[in-house]
Amino acid sequence: MKIRLVNAGIFTPVDDIELTLAPPAEGFYWIDADVEDLALLQPVFNLHDLAVEDCLSDEEQRPKIEIYESHYFIVVNSIRFDDEEIFLRALNVFLGRHYIITVTKQKINELRTLKPILWEQEVSSPDRFLYLLVDLVVDNYFAVGDRIEVKIEKLEEDILMHTKKSHLSEIIGLRGEILWLKKMLGPQKEVVNTLNKKDLRLIDDQLQKYFSDIYENAVKISETFETYRDLMGNLREAYQSSIANRANEIMRVFTAITTIFMPLTVITGIYGMNFDNIPEIHTRYGYYGVIGVMVTLGCGMLYVFRKKEWL
Amino acid sequence: MKIRLVNAGIFTPVDDIELTLAPPAEGFYWIDADVEDLALLQPVFNLHDLAVEDCLSDEEQRPKIEIYESHYFIVVNSIRFDDEEIFLRALNVFLGRHYIITVTKQKINELRTLKPILWEQEVSSPDRFLYLLVDLVVDNYFAVGDRIEVKIEKLEEDILMHTKKSHLSEIIGLRGEILWLKKMLGPQKEVVNTLNKKDLRLIDDQLQKYFSDIYENAVKISETFETYRDLMGNLREAYQSSIANRANEIMRVFTAITTIFMPLTVITGIYGMNFDNIPEIHTRYGYYGVIGVMVTLGCGMLYVFRKKEWL
Amino acid sequence: MKIRLVNAGIFTPVDDIELTLAPPAEGFYWIDADVEDLALLQPVFNLHDLAVEDCLSDEEQRPKIEIYESHYFIVVNSIRFDDEEIFLRALNVFLGRHYIITVTKQKINELRTLKPILWEQEVSSPDRFLYLLVDLVVDNYFAVGDRIEVKIEKLEEDILMHTKKSHLSEIIGLRGEILWLKKMLGPQKEVVNTLNKKDLRLIDDQLQKYFSDIYENAVKISETFETYRDLMGNLREAYQSSIANRANEIMRVFTAITTIFMPLTVITGIYGMNFDNIPEIHTRYGYYGVIGVMVTLGCGMLYVFRKKEWL
Amino acid sequence: MKIRLVNAGIFTPVDDIELTLAPPAEGFYWIDADVEDLALLQPVFNLHDLAVEDCLSDEEQRPKIEIYESHYFIVVNSIRFDDEEIFLRALNVFLGRHYIITVTKQKINELRTLKPILWEQEVSSPDRFLYLLVDLVVDNYFAVGDRIEVKIEKLEEDILMHTKKSHLSEIIGLRGEILWLKKMLGPQKEVVNTLNKKDLRLIDDQLQKYFSDIYENAVKISETFETYRDLMGNLREAYQSSIANRANEIMRVFTAITTIFMPLTVITGIYGMNFDNIPEIHTRYGYYGVIGVMVTLGCGMLYVFRKKEWL
Amino acid sequence: MKIRLVNAGIFTPVDDIELTLAPPAEGFYWIDADVEDLALLQPVFNLHDLAVEDCLSDEEQRPKIEIYESHYFIVVNSIRFDDEEIFLRALNVFLGRHYIITVTKQKINELRTLKPILWEQEVSSPDRFLYLLVDLVVDNYFAVGDRIEVKIEKLEEDILMHTKKSHLSEIIGLRGEILWLKKMLGPQKEVVNTLNKKDLRLIDDQLQKYFSDIYENAVKISETFETYRDLMGNLREAYQSSIANRANEIMRVFTAITTIFMPLTVITGIYGMNFDNIPEIHTRYGYYGVIGVMVTLGCGMLYVFRKKEWL
Repeated sequence: MKIRLVNAGIFTPVDDIELTLAPPAEGFYWIDADVEDLALLQPVFNLHDLAVEDCLSDEEQRPKIEIYESHYFIVVNSIRFDDEEIFLRALNVFLGRHYIITVTKQKINELRTLKPILWEQEVSSPDRFLYLLVDLVVDNYFAVGDRIEVKIEKLEEDILMHTKKSHLSEIIGLRGEILWLKKMLGPQKEVVNTLNKKDLRLIDDQLQKYFSDIYENAVKISETFETYRDLMGNLREAYQSSIANRANEIMRVFTAITTIFMPLTVITGIYGMNFDNIPEIHTRYGYYGVIGVMVTLGCGMLYVFRKKEWL
Repeated sequence: MKIRLVNAGIFTPVDDIELTLAPPAEGFYWIDADVEDLALLQPVFNLHDLAVEDCLSDEEQRPKIEIYESHYFIVVNSIRFDDEEIFLRALNVFLGRHYIITVTKQKINELRTLKPILWEQEVSSPDRFLYLLVDLVVDNYFAVGDRIEVKIEKLEEDILMHTKKSHLSEIIGLRGEILWLKKMLGPQKEVVNTLNKKDLRLIDDQLQKYFSDIYENAVKISETFETYRDLMGNLREAYQSSIANRANEIMRVFTAITTIFMPLTVITGIYGMNFDNIPEIHTRYGYYGVIGVMVTLGCGMLYVFRKKEWL
Repeated sequence: MKIRLVNAGIFTPVDDIELTLAPPAEGFYWIDADVEDLALLQPVFNLHDLAVEDCLSDEEQRPKIEIYESHYFIVVNSIRFDDEEIFLRALNVFLGRHYIITVTKQKINELRTLKPILWEQEVSSPDRFLYLLVDLVVDNYFAVGDRIEVKIEKLEEDILMHTKKSHLSEIIGLRGEILWLKKMLGPQKEVVNTLNKKDLRLIDDQLQKYFSDIYENAVKISETFETYRDLMGNLREAYQSSIANRANEIMRVFTAITTIFMPLTVITGIYGMNFDNIPEIHTRYGYYGVIGVMVTLGCGMLYVFRKKEWL
Repeated sequence: MKIRLVNAGIFTPVDDIELTLAPPAEGFYWIDADVEDLALLQPVFNLHDLAVEDCLSDEEQRPKIEIYESHYFIVVNSIRFDDEEIFLRALNVFLGRHYIITVTKQKINELRTLKPILWEQEVSSPDRFLYLLVDLVVDNYFAVGDRIEVKIEKLEEDILMHTKKSHLSEIIGLRGEILWLKKMLGPQKEVVNTLNKKDLRLIDDQLQKYFSDIYENAVKISETFETYRDLMGNLREAYQSSIANRANEIMRVFTAITTIFMPLTVITGIYGMNFDNIPEIHTRYGYYGVIGVMVTLGCGMLYVFRKKEWL
Repeated sequence: MKIRLVNAGIFTPVDDIELTLAPPAEGFYWIDADVEDLALLQPVFNLHDLAVEDCLSDEEQRPKIEIYESHYFIVVNSIRFDDEEIFLRALNVFLGRHYIITVTKQKINELRTLKPILWEQEVSSPDRFLYLLVDLVVDNYFAVGDRIEVKIEKLEEDILMHTKKSHLSEIIGLRGEILWLKKMLGPQKEVVNTLNKKDLRLIDDQLQKYFSDIYENAVKISETFETYRDLMGNLREAYQSSIANRANEIMRVFTAITTIFMPLTVITGIYGMNFDNIPEIHTRYGYYGVIGVMVTLGCGMLYVFRKKEWL
């Protein structure tokens, strides 16, 4: 657990948690806590039991905002794209009048990225800290969206160039990821909308329009995911068409073989007839001649088909 | 029939219906009635005959709002999703100046859910009660919509993974459900719109914008259902393409068999010809040799087709 | 011809047309005329020659509004859906300062429906009468639209369940109806828009926003028809896909038959070869044995194909 | 060249061009000139060299507006649909403070249509003349759009009823026309937008909103053409599907023939086998019997296929 | 490096860079520099190290705007379409209070095009110079978009007329170009949006709405590219359908050949049967007769298929 007094871009480490009970002369306290620290923090800040339970729970947490007497409890999901896999990490925030407590189970990138921004923008209030944090969290969805777009485009090109059966499961997998992200983003959007629209005591009125910007971004991402879903439909279509066309080509080869041998069958049939008077039959090299004709005819047909690019 | 005096979150049971004739000092009366209670209630509150008839009718009721002298009669359809099936239950409401009467045939979840909300939000007027009730009813459509989305996605994945003929009837069934819900929601939307737009005497002006929020939600749900309908079109396409591709694969096997046997036919034809001079015919093991060649050729073709992944 | 003095919901029959020349103390005159009555009415109200000609014409009338010195001439098309067929009936209206003349060739439902509404809403001016009439006319398009939607959905289900060739002509027919309705509605919309937007002397300013509501409805219907057109495209696609898949299935049966007989051909070919040394040939029951093998093989293939659900 | 003094709907022919140098007491001069008259007009009105060159040029002119010191030079393309073909005709306009010069190479319908309108609306200023002229020109695009829609619908019906190979070139031709019109309309829209938005000295402020109406119309037409483009995509799809289905039907006939003859081949094969003991062979009418069986079998299969509507 | 004092459309060459240190009496300095000149310019104008590094870097530069104490650093990508290929060229701009420095590696068309415009519009401030420059840069994307549209339409026509396998790679290539352009335009849009929305000290408030116009254009282009992407999807579909139909036609020929030879096989089979009593066999010209029948039958079938346009 790290406690810092943040004031106009300056971070002063605070040793004693008791100090944070009273509002500082200027700035606010930022307590960057692990889940374990909650036992210590709860009595000090009078954190709501349900909220603390949520933080401790091992289940996947849905983004939400809860309004308590002295503080708000906010959960957002930080997103990360590592080695072609997407991870969600819950970020729990307790927002008070003069403090903000961030509780995380694993390291969350956004908190690291936030520090220089806090310094640059000389942030002096916990609600503005919250705004910057949520902004970063939502922005990361954009980045993940871009990665997914790249994946879609690569898959599309792959499918068009040389369709493989395995592409189908790739399509289904990617489609699942997109739907999952879309669903994850939904409640996140609602959290931001609450921060934006509702008249919240702990959030400065001036800040509301900033949250409205984030909300717009979240809506934009949501629409992008909707577009991706459509693109996946196109991909599915391209895959199925492509598979059908490939199947057609194989069929063509099969059919061509049959077609080439058909006239040969007729020829053998002709000389298999039992007519008394078939003069060719009695010639010395008739058999070889017929075999020769058959080979020539077969090769000739093959040649013609090739030349016409039918094969 | 339960009669309660609701005032700022406190529910006081009322024994004598005569008491409810006069407006209470504060709050309003909520009468949670069965269909049977109507006989008793009608003379007391002077309920309109047509409205009472509607409540008693056994037919499916269309959502509507009717404006009478001393009260409004509102019908909305509560929706519920049980064991993969959707149920609609009519919820009849008589809204007066100082009372609200809810008449239902079966238990309706929304009324149960409403009680703690009434308590929390310290509701003191019947129009606000109505707003909360309608809000809950419409919100449930969202939940049903989500369930349908889950069904669509599962079906889509199923179809892509291993298409079955039975999927077609699932598509048609799901499509029917969506169209039915869309149609059910239509008049509901109109009811909310009337509460939102029209200048109604019994509804506080302040409340109107809340009803406008519900209306927006109803429109959103409606659009969602429109999207689902499109998705069902995609599903139909995916199914048909998939069926076509599977049919192609079977055709390919059939054609391959024909193709493999075709050259063998020609070989048998050759040795069936009646030429005088076919030297192989007179050799001792010619027959066995030819059979051997035919088997080899057949297996060879099979091997090649397999290797090229044509089969 | 029925002449009535309409005033605040009271209809007073008027015997003498001369009375209608002067504006009544209160209310307005409604003259519900046949085409034949025009000869009498024209000189009284000084109706414009062109307008009267239009009423008398036997051709299909396009909705329009014409502004004359003392009166407006408005044509709208009333729509009706009878026995699965759509009928349009021209409704000609002459709107004056203190009178409204409705001229029709056949009975028009909207006029009948209008009477109780006039009574209920205590209409006292001809422009308001016009508004209510046009509102009814446009509303009926909604109803027809709903019927068409039902038809589309039934056709779609039919096509998906068991496609028939006759469905194609149904698609083309329905598509034609939709396009025709869309086209009919177009000028109607323009008429309403003129009543809504233009600064018309005989229409009260207060009423304009009501006409704007009708216009919105007309636009909504127009968009619905646009959607139906898209749905017809989907239907066409579903039909063609379905036909293709059914064709595929028949092909499969044909191909399967060929495939089953192919190996049998080879077997007969083998024993048709003229090798000196084919021991089986000289056995007593060889022939029956081979026939037995062929039957077994044929049935075996059939059984396998059936079991694999290829047939 | 015809010169007229236009004033409140009255056209006074003017003989001497010198008169037009000075602004008239009321109204404005309209000079309806051929290209040849420009030599005479240029020095009188001090027309800009580049503009005159543009009028004289034989190339296809792009719609544009050019602002010169004393006058504006405007080019719009009048559209006409004759014998199923679309023609564009450049209409050059010089707009001055008290005169308007229209320069055309061929007769342009819009100018003829304009005269009665000028008279009716008692136009007294050249900018209003311009507005009416541009309005007519843009309106004609609507008419051409309608004609194209009719063509599309006819083609769609044709394709669905009996697809022909020639439909493909019709699709490509129609698609080309639509794209060409869309491109022609683009700069026209820009001209109208300039007249609408820019603060032009020679155009009355009151008129601007009228030009904005025209602009809206042009945008609407543009969107209609966009829709047509989509419809052409649908048509292409319908055509290709239809062609595929027809091809399938032919294939089916071919395959059916093969399928019918296949068992016959096996039968002939059976009696072509060289077994010593095939009793039927030695019967007197065995041959005729087999032929009979074969004919019966073939016709039987044909009958069954027909009955099942497979053929 | 060319240094000019720009004032109300007049360009005065400046020899000594020292002069540019102080703001001129009127107008501003425009320094048109190569990358090499940066070494000289950096100390004079106190350019930020990071910005200078960016200019010198050989990598592809992303459009961006950076706000420094005394100047802004802006990078935009100029686009050019040469010989069917698209080139991007980074254009670095340093915007100060009284100067603008443009740094480029290669000649950039927009700078050349800008000069007469600067003269015409009598530009007197560096921010307006920036506006005109960015406007030109963004406008060029329109031109490139038009070229791509032409390419798409040509490709579509090509595909519909005579599909070739090479079209697939053309589709993939064009699709890649469109996606790449869409991606390039993205950050450009953000740069313009920053210039438009943010309260920038060095940009006149009046100018902001002009930047908003550019932003709208950029959004429009972006949407156009989105449309193109959809069109590419259509093209892919047309290509795949077309390929499938062509494959079908080849299959038809193959199948037809098989179908024509099938009955012939049966005929030869018939006379290959070993019945004792086949009278035709012993006739003198039976063999020739059968051959004749076979040829006639084959040609007849071919003739019929041709006539029915099945081949």
